[in-house]
Amino acid sequence: MEIRLWLFSVFLFMGTAISWVESKYLVYNTSQGIVPDKLNVHLVAHTHDDVGWLKTVDQYYVGSNNSIQGACVRNVLDSLIPALLADKNRKFIYVEMAFFQRWWRDQSEAMQQIVKQLVSSGQLEFINGGMCMHDEAVTHYIDMIDQTTLGHQFIKKEFGVTPRIGWQIDPFGHSAVQAYLLGTEVGFDSLFFGRIDYQDRAKRKNEKSLEVVWQGSDSLGSSAQIFAGAFPENYEPPPGGFYFEVNDPSPIVQDDMNLFDYNVPDRVNDFVAAAISQANITRTNHIMWTMGTDFKYQYAETWFREMDKLIHYVNMDGRVNALYSTPSIYTDAKHATNESWPAKTDDFFPYADRANAYWTGYFTSRPALKRYVRMMSGYYLAARQLEFLSGRSNTGPNTDSLADALAIAQHHDAVAGTEKQHVANDYAKRLSIGYSEAEKLVASSLACLAESTSHNGCQSPAKKFQQCPLLNISYCPASEINQSHGKNLVVVVYNSLGWKRDDVIQIPVINDEVIVHDSEGREIESQLLPLADVYVALRNSYVQAYLGKRPMDTPKYWLAFTVSVPPFGFSTYTISGSKSAANTRVSDLRRLRTWLNSHSVFTLDIMELEMIKIHSIRLSLSKFTSHIICLFPLKNAGAYIFRPNGTFIIKPEKQIPLIVMRGPIVEEVHQQINQWIYQITRLYKGKEHVEVEFIVGPVPIDDGIGKEVATQITTTMATNKTFYTDSNGRDFIKRIRDYRTDWNLEVNQPAAGNYYPINLGIYTKDDKKEFSVLVDRPLGASSLVDGQVELMLHRRLLLDDSRGVAEALNETVCVLDQCKGLIIQGKYYFRIDPLGEGAKWRRSFGQEIYSPLLLAFAEEDGDNWSNSHVTTFSATGSSFSLPDNVALITLQELDDGKVLLRLAHLYQIGEDKDLSVMTSVELKKLFHGKKIHKVAEMSLSANQQRTEMEKKRLVWKAEGLERREAVARGGPVDPAELVVELSPMEIRTFVIDFDHTFHHVFDV
Amino acid sequence: MEIRLWLFSVFLFMGTAISWVESKYLVYNTSQGIVPDKLNVHLVAHTHDDVGWLKTVDQYYVGSNNSIQGACVRNVLDSLIPALLADKNRKFIYVEMAFFQRWWRDQSEAMQQIVKQLVSSGQLEFINGGMCMHDEAVTHYIDMIDQTTLGHQFIKKEFGVTPRIGWQIDPFGHSAVQAYLLGTEVGFDSLFFGRIDYQDRAKRKNEKSLEVVWQGSDSLGSSAQIFAGAFPENYEPPPGGFYFEVNDPSPIVQDDMNLFDYNVPDRVNDFVAAAISQANITRTNHIMWTMGTDFKYQYAETWFREMDKLIHYVNMDGRVNALYSTPSIYTDAKHATNESWPAKTDDFFPYADRANAYWTGYFTSRPALKRYVRMMSGYYLAARQLEFLSGRSNTGPNTDSLADALAIAQHHDAVAGTEKQHVANDYAKRLSIGYSEAEKLVASSLACLAESTSHNGCQSPAKKFQQCPLLNISYCPASEINQSHGKNLVVVVYNSLGWKRDDVIQIPVINDEVIVHDSEGREIESQLLPLADVYVALRNSYVQAYLGKRPMDTPKYWLAFTVSVPPFGFSTYTISGSKSAANTRVSDLRRLRTWLNSHSVFTLDIMELEMIKIHSIRLSLSKFTSHIICLFPLKNAGAYIFRPNGTFIIKPEKQIPLIVMRGPIVEEVHQQINQWIYQITRLYKGKEHVEVEFIVGPVPIDDGIGKEVATQITTTMATNKTFYTDSNGRDFIKRIRDYRTDWNLEVNQPAAGNYYPINLGIYTKDDKKEFSVLVDRPLGASSLVDGQVELMLHRRLLLDDSRGVAEALNETVCVLDQCKGLIIQGKYYFRIDPLGEGAKWRRSFGQEIYSPLLLAFAEEDGDNWSNSHVTTFSATGSSFSLPDNVALITLQELDDGKVLLRLAHLYQIGEDKDLSVMTSVELKKLFHGKKIHKVAEMSLSANQQRTEMEKKRLVWKAEGLERREAVARGGPVDPAELVVELSPMEIRTFVIDFDHTFHHVFDV
Repeated sequence: MEIRLWLFSVFLFMGTAISWVESKYLVYNTSQGIVPDKLNVHLVAHTHDDVGWLKTVDQYYVGSNNSIQGACVRNVLDSLIPALLADKNRKFIYVEMAFFQRWWRDQSEAMQQIVKQLVSSGQLEFINGGMCMHDEAVTHYIDMIDQTTLGHQFIKKEFGVTPRIGWQIDPFGHSAVQAYLLGTEVGFDSLFFGRIDYQDRAKRKNEKSLEVVWQGSDSLGSSAQIFAGAFPENYEPPPGGFYFEVNDPSPIVQDDMNLFDYNVPDRVNDFVAAAISQANITRTNHIMWTMGTDFKYQYAETWFREMDKLIHYVNMDGRVNALYSTPSIYTDAKHATNESWPAKTDDFFPYADRANAYWTGYFTSRPALKRYVRMMSGYYLAARQLEFLSGRSNTGPNTDSLADALAIAQHHDAVAGTEKQHVANDYAKRLSIGYSEAEKLVASSLACLAESTSHNGCQSPAKKFQQCPLLNISYCPASEINQSHGKNLVVVVYNSLGWKRDDVIQIPVINDEVIVHDSEGREIESQLLPLADVYVALRNSYVQAYLGKRPMDTPKYWLAFTVSVPPFGFSTYTISGSKSAANTRVSDLRRLRTWLNSHSVFTLDIMELEMIKIHSIRLSLSKFTSHIICLFPLKNAGAYIFRPNGTFIIKPEKQIPLIVMRGPIVEEVHQQINQWIYQITRLYKGKEHVEVEFIVGPVPIDDGIGKEVATQITTTMATNKTFYTDSNGRDFIKRIRDYRTDWNLEVNQPAAGNYYPINLGIYTKDDKKEFSVLVDRPLGASSLVDGQVELMLHRRLLLDDSRGVAEALNETVCVLDQCKGLIIQGKYYFRIDPLGEGAKWRRSFGQEIYSPLLLAFAEEDGDNWSNSHVTTFSATGSSFSLPDNVALITLQELDDGKVLLRLAHLYQIGEDKDLSVMTSVELKKLFHGKKIHKVAEMSLSANQQRTEMEKKRLVWKAEGLERREAVARGGPVDPAELVVELSPMEIRTFVIDFDHTFHHVFDV
Repeated sequence: MEIRLWLFSVFLFMGTAISWVESKYLVYNTSQGIVPDKLNVHLVAHTHDDVGWLKTVDQYYVGSNNSIQGACVRNVLDSLIPALLADKNRKFIYVEMAFFQRWWRDQSEAMQQIVKQLVSSGQLEFINGGMCMHDEAVTHYIDMIDQTTLGHQFIKKEFGVTPRIGWQIDPFGHSAVQAYLLGTEVGFDSLFFGRIDYQDRAKRKNEKSLEVVWQGSDSLGSSAQIFAGAFPENYEPPPGGFYFEVNDPSPIVQDDMNLFDYNVPDRVNDFVAAAISQANITRTNHIMWTMGTDFKYQYAETWFREMDKLIHYVNMDGRVNALYSTPSIYTDAKHATNESWPAKTDDFFPYADRANAYWTGYFTSRPALKRYVRMMSGYYLAARQLEFLSGRSNTGPNTDSLADALAIAQHHDAVAGTEKQHVANDYAKRLSIGYSEAEKLVASSLACLAESTSHNGCQSPAKKFQQCPLLNISYCPASEINQSHGKNLVVVVYNSLGWKRDDVIQIPVINDEVIVHDSEGREIESQLLPLADVYVALRNSYVQAYLGKRPMDTPKYWLAFTVSVPPFGFSTYTISGSKSAANTRVSDLRRLRTWLNSHSVFTLDIMELEMIKIHSIRLSLSKFTSHIICLFPLKNAGAYIFRPNGTFIIKPEKQIPLIVMRGPIVEEVHQQINQWIYQITRLYKGKEHVEVEFIVGPVPIDDGIGKEVATQITTTMATNKTFYTDSNGRDFIKRIRDYRTDWNLEVNQPAAGNYYPINLGIYTKDDKKEFSVLVDRPLGASSLVDGQVELMLHRRLLLDDSRGVAEALNETVCVLDQCKGLIIQGKYYFRIDPLGEGAKWRRSFGQEIYSPLLLAFAEEDGDNWSNSHVTTFSATGSSFSLPDNVALITLQELDDGKVLLRLAHLYQIGEDKDLSVMTSVELKKLFHGKKIHKVAEMSLSANQQRTEMEKKRLVWKAEGLERREAVARGGPVDPAELVVELSPMEIRTFVIDFDHTFHHVFDV
């Protein structure tokens, strides 16, 4: 400690010394604070460091691959510290913890002490503070929370501080969930951003309403308001030449009379003019200048040197007041004015930066990466549960690497699909590495839980489970064993949801005579579906592309059977060879050359079936149609921008026969629509929705034209231009075609301007019914015609849209140097419910999509698995399940052994007559068998006590928004009762201290 | 002192601390020195900072005008210091004092102490150390000495050190004078450079002869040898990706295992490969890598960070040895090997960087700037004499500003003419400001010397003299007074040469009845020459262009008369109005429509006159012709490159009559050759040479083709491909057409490849005669045909030659926004002498061209000037003059009151049978009336005692060059006798301490 202090004082001295030595004759006065009766220009020195875009995150950090983009974040941070030490008035904000962490871990303790002092003095402030500046359109709220938490925890741990400000300056539109959940609920006092629709911006500048009070949640109302500011143009310095990066062409302040070109008066005039121009569109006498942009401050001194001079001379001039500031200081200054602000509800989607330039293409760009991220997200949630259940190892396999990869993937050029191809590959590689690590943990944890012999701790279980991440392309070596030689396949099915779940699973098998037994040893019904040619082709080429080798054998069937799994637990199924597989039916297969009567296909329990017509399967009532369409983009469409020039309905090229597979578990209709579109419509026993699997690609480009592929599902419902899309998979927001709440929309792109991002789904309704479509990944969706829902499934483009990525979005997959356009495989699901009853399916099935059953496989050599293993398990005990309107979205053992818990109410206010109500969860039951020592309710990112956060929260006056005195929220958790109340849409975050005398749950 | 030491230790600690904190896990070992049995790769960290080129010197310093070129020298120096402090093994060299001085004067004493310590420890080394890296083709040796001295004195004063190494890495060819005079005589142990002919380079790489012992002087022989190294390619890092500027695309060394793209083995292999490749063309086991290039190290840490890693990992690898080094360390290492080196004599001109790309255009580019620099150079020499004579004022008007401007103008993109137009303007502006200051000093000093009443010091003389810097365009308000109203014009004529001088001067007057009296009051002969129309036009437009106003009246005549001035002194002439001006003749004027018989024009004392024919004035013997030619450049000709595509002899467009002016003093033949070429051939009474004045321009470009204008003077002499051109106005070097001493020249540009720069002149000879041409400024010259001499006078080009300046050399002059091509006015002089006798004229008249008589004017209202003034003066007293073979090239009072003296022997060995001999100067006589206290002989740049310099000098072994044991040099100066001996071409530099009890010379 003494050494530290000593070092400290030396470095502080160094700061002073350098400050003093700055110039022999010129000492700049940069100490100015706010001056109440002047226009205050808050200079916010910042760098915007994309966590991957044109280069990978590591390339950006170390400064390699500079031929693509000159950018080195290490330079920024290395050069920043002496620049801050040189003058204690200089301030800087840093945003992206993915970069900061990389830098931090390379610093000595002495340097770390210096930086801590800079943070503590406020010279260096962490803003936003997630690992990245996540996207807001195509990110799932759980991912947003996780990545923000990761960053905030790091900041808390190393610096003991909590970021106060949201700083989403670059994402391409802004979500309600960002405002209220990742803003207010995180404890932010304000949220700043750069990109809003150009028409919206123009009106707001005119009305001085760029800065608002944003109430992003209907359910949480005023309790989740936040002060939000859109910048006048972007997140760069104002017009007038104030860029001061090394080699920037802005005129520096030349104040040396000994040299030529002295220009202080000119530059002061430039400054004042720019300030007054901004003041004219801003309320109060405070304006913020974002002094920086992408990857700037590589030699930080160049900026501070000029800002020093500007502050000095502008304040000498006296017309306006210039000061080093931060968004926090600016926010406090705004708040102190006691001004009222315009109100803002809903969100800022879609974003257009000029006429005809809607950034709605990226809602679908890189659909495979988007799906991969979503898969990993659900897997990460499940893996953390298992990590908690078996005990976290800081050294052994754990979820840290996956957490990191997922966090980075939320960046607004990552999952957004707007990065260069090699960078997309990097995200995928990181996810893959993270997955591999987590997969080991999952395998080991499940084995521990299953091996009843190893009750006391479980370091190395005897059995390792195999998993099949490539199951989607029907590749699962673990299940493709030959059961005819006495080997049994054991499938452990883990359910990470808090409810018991009955689902159909499908796995590839090579035998045609198999029998399935459940956890109790009962033979259960199953069905074999011949593996369609399209799967074989996908499997062969993509396994080779991914693994570098062609798979040996090809399984003959998908084996489908229904599993039943308790909450937070697993069930075990055994598949064995048997000639007398009474309960296993090979599907009835028919090739239909004529139109199929729909009833013969879809008969099971589907309600309203008569209304449904799948694609060219025309139903008699003809109320429902589905088309896949191709959109031909204009020249300036690209990874970001959707700008269709023409629409073409894709009809089957010729009368390719439909294939119908029927059986007791699932019925499928296969249709090869053309050479590059294959569609399977699927109905499951006991399920009331339709599942559509699409295999699209390679999108042909031999005509030299890129294409966007969308599916249109048409009903006869009178939906009155209205539809609903989710915000980051959480709140549904009402959308009206060709309409914006905040301004009179001038429609110049009837398709692109009505697209919205969906993560969970989209629905429409008329006076009787709701029609809901849910998706397995984020994509762009709309309802361009009443009664119709449109989803964009794939994009392959040949031109760049001039928004920086400088690469056409033309994804290919290569096998032995032969590259073909990427094939997208995915699913969407739809269902029709009576009006007012659709939420239940959307919410609960939505959870199932996000958290699919996790399958782990083991081989058994004729032994009796159930004798040596636990075959069914629930962490909460068999009698407990979460209420239907609550999901556990985080259960994670932290570094320090404490446990992070998040419970989320799944319903908005008014969404469901039964479920949109206050509900509660008894922690004692949830943590069945464990003793809770202490529960602390935290901010959403768990970096401060909730009560402290509430205490500090700034309250803003909003014009036209009544401040509801009592928004319903769950009350404090009684330490004895330990019951967590949740009001609609409420998410509550806890850190729980368990009594360490108790063992892990599987001991009990 | 205590404070300093304390600061010091703090900063040293800081250095250590930062070094230690550099990285938590990685501490790089950068301490490696030379390893005898390995290939040593000397990493020389450097930046090459042009003192003006695409931007002005101040713009480069402060980093403005970055849209032209991203470059800010302040960044380099600001960021360098912490980078050096961070690791005591890091080293850097700095070269251009013009920039360093700008930075230095802004630093606090604390920072200055730090830097002094870095210099003292060798981490920061000054190399070359002049104000700029001067050009070597078109610079006069006196300017080279002056600008080097200015830098070296600064370094000596501030740091107490003397640069050891010449570092002319960028100039476009290398001169003998640079090697022996600005190299050896300055005390350099080696000289490095980048640009030599591509054919030469190829041969030298092949023969490992890039590094040589260069004996640049025939006269001084081995006593002035220097070790000289041409770089393998340029002055940048070797091929293989070793550029580490912010944003440079070279791959950084990625050694963090936690990040992707670890590449240490690859980068080490790259390094070793590049090292071995260079070792293969280099003698000894030492190679130098020039780690930097133009304006690099703007954030110095980026380079050092990577070099740290390279040194660390390459030395771990062990195949080669990498170390931080400097050219000094490298030179010592080379010397320590005791290797013998190839010998090199003469020089490295002309320079071609590839086939057909001879950098010989710049020898003439911007001829007006070149002339301005040369005029100022002579004026500066005279002004310093007067400053010395009247006493230097550190505050009042002095020569400092002119010294600075002249120094900067020697930069290899300044006087070279290869800068952008706005930068050329900047040099001119600086010269003009410097001139104005010096002009005041000169006026005041002459007045002091002339006012006999003010013997004791002279702060503010009663009379201020006017001077006429625009006399060349016949604009001289001071002389254009109406003498008919009783006002007399007093002309004080100062002679800065050490010999008595009889010269004709010409001044514009408005009266046609004037009479001239000399210092003794005797009426002397004079002649009035009507002002030709061409002068009136030049005067009207250029005065307006320069001064912003059109001159009011137009003088009617040039008044010519012969003046006689003592050495280092003046004479006074009075011009009054008189109707009875018996001795003043208005020239006899004839318009000749027929060919003129030469004898009628040229009759006076000119020898060999029958051989001369001026232009279209054909002599009967027709032995001599002169043409002006136009060269049409190829596309890739430009400011640097001369590449003629065709030659066109310019004949008079029609029979414009010749005008012949005859009189007792001067006879002139005027010829308007075409609309844009005017030529005056002039003979002076008592002079045996012909003076040709040319007025060329605007060069027409309405055909869209740029043009180069040359004059060809043809004799019938059999010159056998041989001619002689001077090196920086000093040594003449023998040139043979289509031949190089060092390699078999592959001729691809018969004109451009045979051009050489001249500063003094060019001559040819046959077995009887010498034909010499002297010039008033540097230009390109050759003898492309036996008997012929060619001078390029002007260039106007419309395309850029892709060597960086990115601007066509198309000089214009604007009046009221009307811009026209620049008109060049200049003079050359020629004469024919018997073989072996030409040197006398070349040397002595060369001095007169360099140091024209300085004219100062005053008005006198009928008073008798001579009663109140000294009318004739010589600093040395009337009886003394310097020997014919000696010139005083510096006489300057230094800051500390001591006096800097340089005496130069003007003749090469063997150049003249009488004058190429040891000679001597008696200082006591030279400093007539002053008492010399102490004389210290110094190195050429006066930054160390000559004896010390000789003691330290490294002696090199040269292959094939005998080391002459005793090169004749003047012996030590006996403190009592104070006689300075000078051997041929010797320049000796002294610092003289006068006895302060004596007054200045004019007291005596």
